[in-house]
Amino acid sequence: MKLSVLISFLLMTASVAAFGQEKQSGRSENRHSEVAEKGLVKISVMYPFAEGKKFNMEYYQTRHMPMVAGFLGANLVKYTIEKGLASGIPNQPLPYMAIGTFYVKSLDEYKSAIGPKRDAIRADFANYTDIAPVILVSEVVR
Amino acid sequence: MKLSVLISFLLMTASVAAFGQEKQSGRSENRHSEVAEKGLVKISVMYPFAEGKKFNMEYYQTRHMPMVAGFLGANLVKYTIEKGLASGIPNQPLPYMAIGTFYVKSLDEYKSAIGPKRDAIRADFANYTDIAPVILVSEVVR
Repeated sequence: MKLSVLISFLLMTASVAAFGQEKQSGRSENRHSEVAEKGLVKISVMYPFAEGKKFNMEYYQTRHMPMVAGFLGANLVKYTIEKGLASGIPNQPLPYMAIGTFYVKSLDEYKSAIGPKRDAIRADFANYTDIAPVILVSEVVR
Repeated sequence: MKLSVLISFLLMTASVAAFGQEKQSGRSENRHSEVAEKGLVKISVMYPFAEGKKFNMEYYQTRHMPMVAGFLGANLVKYTIEKGLASGIPNQPLPYMAIGTFYVKSLDEYKSAIGPKRDAIRADFANYTDIAPVILVSEVVR
């Protein structure tokens, strides 16, 4: 009898714990997708496509972007890399070969961190591209 | 004695459950930020800035983007909206006033969903902008 009471208690505790876990995991994912990006500043470094221009994605991904990300410290929330595939408008040329994006909390902090490294960053360009990038600073509104 | 055994069991179970929860929550967040975007296709609808052009962000955010998102069904993982603030290169004009981005699992599914709605989407442009957008289809590589 005492044993069966103990077992019931354990089963009950286990199922409450399992339910709690599911709730916790759902809540955490929600927080991540809704709060993580909204209000952040994006710095998008966009490399326009042009016939005959080069872009070494492997170097960009394994060397250049990690180097720049390393300059940004705790202000950097995340960075992303995308590879241009096509224009979304039929018969239009590909707009960009690649885009690298830094999501930061503060634009001022980004500027103070990048300022003293600008020459090192520019000097590394020649290692992967001969394209002059377009750079957009934007705010994530959704 | 029996009661103290029961209490020890309950405390032990509770701490195992709490530890499990923490692990679960960390893992889920990890999965979200590392797996959620990589490999997805982005369709970025970019509105170039030009002096005197208009863009009604409120209409875009509350009416246009939700309408298009509604056409995409389960293929749509998320969509984002950003507001252009400045060029990241000193003394250069703002490249884009706004960008709306759809993250989808399949480009083919996106095309079949959007195809029959193209006229409705284009007809809604006049309600918020007189800018012809640039559209980039890209793959998230990181």
